[in-house]
Amino acid sequence: MHETMNPMSFVRTKAAPEREAELALREPIAPARVAAEDLLAFSGAVYEAVGLPRRDAELAADTLVQADLWGHQSHGVMRLPWYVARIRSGVVAAQAQPELVVDGGAVAVIDGHDGMGQVLAARAAEEAIARAKAHGIGAVAVRNSNHFGTAMYFTLMAAARGCIGFLSTNASPAMAPWGGREKAVGTNPWSWAAPAGTNPPFVLDIANTAVARGKIYLARQKGLPIPEGWAIDADGAPTTDAVAALGGITMPMAGHKGYAIAAAMDMLSGVLTGSSFGKAVTGPYQAERRGGTGHLMLALNIEAFQPLAEFEQRMDDYIAELKGVALARGVEEIVYPGELEARNEAANRRDGLTLPADTILDLLKLAAETGCKAPPQWTL
Amino acid sequence: MHETMNPMSFVRTKAAPEREAELALREPIAPARVAAEDLLAFSGAVYEAVGLPRRDAELAADTLVQADLWGHQSHGVMRLPWYVARIRSGVVAAQAQPELVVDGGAVAVIDGHDGMGQVLAARAAEEAIARAKAHGIGAVAVRNSNHFGTAMYFTLMAAARGCIGFLSTNASPAMAPWGGREKAVGTNPWSWAAPAGTNPPFVLDIANTAVARGKIYLARQKGLPIPEGWAIDADGAPTTDAVAALGGITMPMAGHKGYAIAAAMDMLSGVLTGSSFGKAVTGPYQAERRGGTGHLMLALNIEAFQPLAEFEQRMDDYIAELKGVALARGVEEIVYPGELEARNEAANRRDGLTLPADTILDLLKLAAETGCKAPPQWTL
Repeated sequence: MHETMNPMSFVRTKAAPEREAELALREPIAPARVAAEDLLAFSGAVYEAVGLPRRDAELAADTLVQADLWGHQSHGVMRLPWYVARIRSGVVAAQAQPELVVDGGAVAVIDGHDGMGQVLAARAAEEAIARAKAHGIGAVAVRNSNHFGTAMYFTLMAAARGCIGFLSTNASPAMAPWGGREKAVGTNPWSWAAPAGTNPPFVLDIANTAVARGKIYLARQKGLPIPEGWAIDADGAPTTDAVAALGGITMPMAGHKGYAIAAAMDMLSGVLTGSSFGKAVTGPYQAERRGGTGHLMLALNIEAFQPLAEFEQRMDDYIAELKGVALARGVEEIVYPGELEARNEAANRRDGLTLPADTILDLLKLAAETGCKAPPQWTL
Repeated sequence: MHETMNPMSFVRTKAAPEREAELALREPIAPARVAAEDLLAFSGAVYEAVGLPRRDAELAADTLVQADLWGHQSHGVMRLPWYVARIRSGVVAAQAQPELVVDGGAVAVIDGHDGMGQVLAARAAEEAIARAKAHGIGAVAVRNSNHFGTAMYFTLMAAARGCIGFLSTNASPAMAPWGGREKAVGTNPWSWAAPAGTNPPFVLDIANTAVARGKIYLARQKGLPIPEGWAIDADGAPTTDAVAALGGITMPMAGHKGYAIAAAMDMLSGVLTGSSFGKAVTGPYQAERRGGTGHLMLALNIEAFQPLAEFEQRMDDYIAELKGVALARGVEEIVYPGELEARNEAANRRDGLTLPADTILDLLKLAAETGCKAPPQWTL
C-alpha cells in the first residue's frame, strides 16, 4: 500500500502501447552507460541523415535525450525510430516550414504544414515568450503539426526566460468518452512550468489517462487483478480483470474528470487552433497517416505581474512549505512537481544513460541504415 | 459497477465537509418548489441588508442561485449563511474596493482588499475579456480576495462574449502533499469554458480532490469500505476503511497527479498574483480569518485565432463526434462537459428549485435576522 504513496514523478510516462508492453516484460540486458552528449550527437546525425536541417535535427535530438535525462525513457531516444519512420514515409515534412498565418499582437497562429512537432512547438514557445515580453502574456496556436514528444521541454523554455509556460496538445484517440466503448479522445497532455527561485523549475506534465497500458500487460503476466478505474472491457464496463482490460480501453485519470479535461485540451489544441481534433488526429506510433496535431502555447511574463525576484522568493517559500509537511509513515521525502526530473538529470549527466537492449538494437539498425556512427559502447 | 459509468456532471460538487455530511445523511423533507427569481430576490436582499451595494448584492446572489439552477446545490444558496457570517465578522469587506495595481496592456493585477470573491472574480472576468478584445488574450490576477463560489460562473462570462475563459483559484488546505499526512494544499479549483455553437457552452470546473468528504460519511453510515484512492488515515497511509478515512485526509484526484495540479493552481492563483498561498489561505467555512485568496483569470478572444462562426461550427462537430461514440452497455447517452448543467438549468427554471429542509431553516433564520422577506412557500 505504501508503495503508491512514495514520491513519484509528476509527469506522464506513457509509451506506445505495444512497445511499452514489451518494455514492461523485459529487463535491460545491456546496461553500458552512454554519455548524453554522445547520444545527442548520434540522434542529431540520424535526424540530419533523413533530411532535417542541422538546427532542427539538433533540437529534435535534444528533446529525446532530455527526456531520457529526466528519467522519462518512454519519451526518450527509444522513439527516434518512430519519428524517423514518419519522416521517411513523407507524412512528416523533414524541412519544417512554419507559416505565421495570424500575427496579432499578443496572439499568433502558426500553420505547421506537417512539419516536426518538436520544431513547431519550440517555435511556438519562442513566439509566445516574445509576445509575453511585449504584452505581458502571449498565446500561440499551432495547427497541422505532429507529436512533439514531451510538453515540459517547451514550457521549461518559458520558465528559463522568466515566464510561466503552458502547453497543451491533442493526440491520437486513446480513451472512450465517459460512457462510451470506443476510442475517440486522446491522452491530450498539458504542462505548466515556472521558475522556482533557488530550486529547479516547478513543472508538471500530465497525460489524462489513468494508467500506462504496459502496467495492465504486467498484471496479466503476473495473474493479478488491476485496480478499479484503470480500464473498461470491450462492452465499456469497468473491469478489474487484466485480460478483459486488454480487450478494452484504458480509462481517463480521475474517472469522468479526466475525460472532461482531455476534451478541454482538444478544444484548445485542435478546435481553437484550426487543426484536426478528435478521431482525426494521428499519433507517432504508425508511419502512414499525417498527424493533424494541434498545440496551444501560452507564456505569462512574470515581471508583468510582480518583480521576478519576488516571485522566485515566493516559490522558494511555497516549495519549502510543501516539503516541510509531516511525512506519511514509510515516506522519506515530499517532492514538488519537477524535483525528481531535475535530480534524475543531474545523476544521468554525471553517470551516463543506460538504455534497454532492444532500444540499442533499434538504434544500431538506424545507424546501419543511415551511415551514422553509433556510440562505441553499443558495439555488440 | 455500471453505475459509475453513467453520464455525470463534470464539475465539482464539494461542500463544506461537515455540512455536506449532514446533507448526505438526510432526505429533503420540504420539497416546496421556489422560482429562481424569488430565491434571487431574497438572497440579493440579504446581501444588501448586510452592507453590499445593490449591484454587488445582485451579482453575489446570482452566483448562488445559478449554482442551484445548474444542479450544484453544494455551491448554491445553502452557502449564503457562511458568506454572510464572514461579512458580519468583518473579514470580508462588504463594500468591495478593487484596486488596479497593475494595468499593463494585456495584463492587469487587482488588489481585492478583502472584498467579496464573487465581485472581484466578476471584475477580473470583465477586465480579462476587455483586454482579450484589445490584444487577443488577457490575463487578470486577483490578490487578497475571498472564496468566489463556482469558477464556471466567471469563465462562462467569457464564453458568452466569444472568448475562451480560464479561471483558477487557491483555497484553504484540504489535502496533504503527496507523501504527507497534514493538510497543506487546497482543492484549488479551475475551469475552462468556451462557446459551443448550437450547443450550450462547453465548460469544465474541476476541484482536485478525489471525492467529496460526504461520500465517506455515507460509507461509514452504511458500514461499507471506501475505494482505494479516496483517503489516507491519520498516519498518511491509504485506507479503504471509512472510519480511518474520517480520521485522516481526503486524497487528491488521480493520486499524485492531482497533488501536482493543485500545487500548480496555487502557483498561478497565489504565488503569481501576490496573494496568500498554501496554508495561509482561509476558506468560507469559518468566519473569523481573512481569506487571502488569489485567482487568475484568462480570456482568449476566439476571433483573434479564427472566425468565431468557424470555431462554433467546429465545436458542434467535435461535440457530435463525442456524443456519437458507441455506448457502453447500460449507458443511455454520452454527454460533453457542461451539457448536464444546461439541462438542469432548463428544468429548474421551468419547475422551480427544491432545497433541503435545513437549508430552508437556515435561510428563514437569515430572513428573520435581516428583516428580508423569505419566499412564501417556506412559511412553515
